[in-house]
Amino acid sequence: MSGAVPNRVSVFAKKRRGRPRNAEKSPEFEEKLAAIVEAAANVFREKGYASGSLDDVAAALDIRKATLYYYIDSKAKLLEMIFERGLSTARRKIDSLAEITDPKERLQALIRHQIEIVSSDRGHFAVFFDHLSVSDKSEAKSPRLRALEKEYMESFLRIVESAVKAGVIADVPSKYAVQAIIGMTCWTYKWFEPTRHNAEAMYDTCVRLLIRK
Amino acid sequence: MSGAVPNRVSVFAKKRRGRPRNAEKSPEFEEKLAAIVEAAANVFREKGYASGSLDDVAAALDIRKATLYYYIDSKAKLLEMIFERGLSTARRKIDSLAEITDPKERLQALIRHQIEIVSSDRGHFAVFFDHLSVSDKSEAKSPRLRALEKEYMESFLRIVESAVKAGVIADVPSKYAVQAIIGMTCWTYKWFEPTRHNAEAMYDTCVRLLIRK
Repeated sequence: MSGAVPNRVSVFAKKRRGRPRNAEKSPEFEEKLAAIVEAAANVFREKGYASGSLDDVAAALDIRKATLYYYIDSKAKLLEMIFERGLSTARRKIDSLAEITDPKERLQALIRHQIEIVSSDRGHFAVFFDHLSVSDKSEAKSPRLRALEKEYMESFLRIVESAVKAGVIADVPSKYAVQAIIGMTCWTYKWFEPTRHNAEAMYDTCVRLLIRK
Repeated sequence: MSGAVPNRVSVFAKKRRGRPRNAEKSPEFEEKLAAIVEAAANVFREKGYASGSLDDVAAALDIRKATLYYYIDSKAKLLEMIFERGLSTARRKIDSLAEITDPKERLQALIRHQIEIVSSDRGHFAVFFDHLSVSDKSEAKSPRLRALEKEYMESFLRIVESAVKAGVIADVPSKYAVQAIIGMTCWTYKWFEPTRHNAEAMYDTCVRLLIRK
């Protein structure tokens, strides 16, 4: 993965009309902010959060650092935004799984969702997982982030509980099964290389290892 | 987990007779070095590698920073030693599992080993896993470390392959099953709290989720 994000650089080529006010964030502002967050996630993943700088983020987007400051206040804020975006995306997705009524299909969809988001966006998840664990007291963990995380874990637990109850997976304590399945799927961010590995094969492996009937 | 390592501090109370030469590292030197590596792993886990300093390590051991330099050259070297010690321990253990001839018992022993070492020593593994992933090109990854990692993965693969072949787990590609089982067990370092969780229950959960017969 390269630090540059060529497909997003173009959003900065558009004409900018002065610094946008916080009160009215335009779609254009949001689009550029999203490109910055994505580029920052890649930079932090490659260099680590400590070594990656706002200069690197600006360079990856081919913009001046001053331009970056139109959109963000600090590196710490950027990290928080990376986390919030990652979890918001994940949470919207897990919530949509509640519509699936069959416990087996729902668990399969959850496993697919986990592997898809993590393998397709390792930059976000590397920064997210390596800078704050569930028990971490990191300052970067805002109240909003804590709430998102708690809700995600609760949704995850409900899906696993119903799978245990229906005999879809072995009869094990749900709270440990949740961690086992999260580990199995999220670990993907540590090793998955899109050019060498196949997300569908990993999904299939997890489903076949776990599901009984 | 506190940064202090009270049970190890005592090793520094012993009389020191000048700086030990590299050529002849006494058991006493090795004992103190081990205490430093352990304290450093705790410091880096709590503060992160970037924020944790040699001053913190010295403070955790209640020794002067100058004393620390008798044993180690730099923070980076300390990180490398944390990694090497973690992997050496893990590798000695996985090698000893080759003596178990039954594929199911061997896989169970592997799962137990993974959960035990990770849950009992989250400090080492947090620093290890969060600072270098398999695909990471981190400078901290010495040739010795790469070799240890490769050997560990090969031993792991052999155990999983024989479990697949014997029908102990589902018939899935071994290379993905290895990552699934490593993820399931190693993820423990992200969430396991000795006061709130039970390593035996996690082991039992993983075994029951995976093993078919």
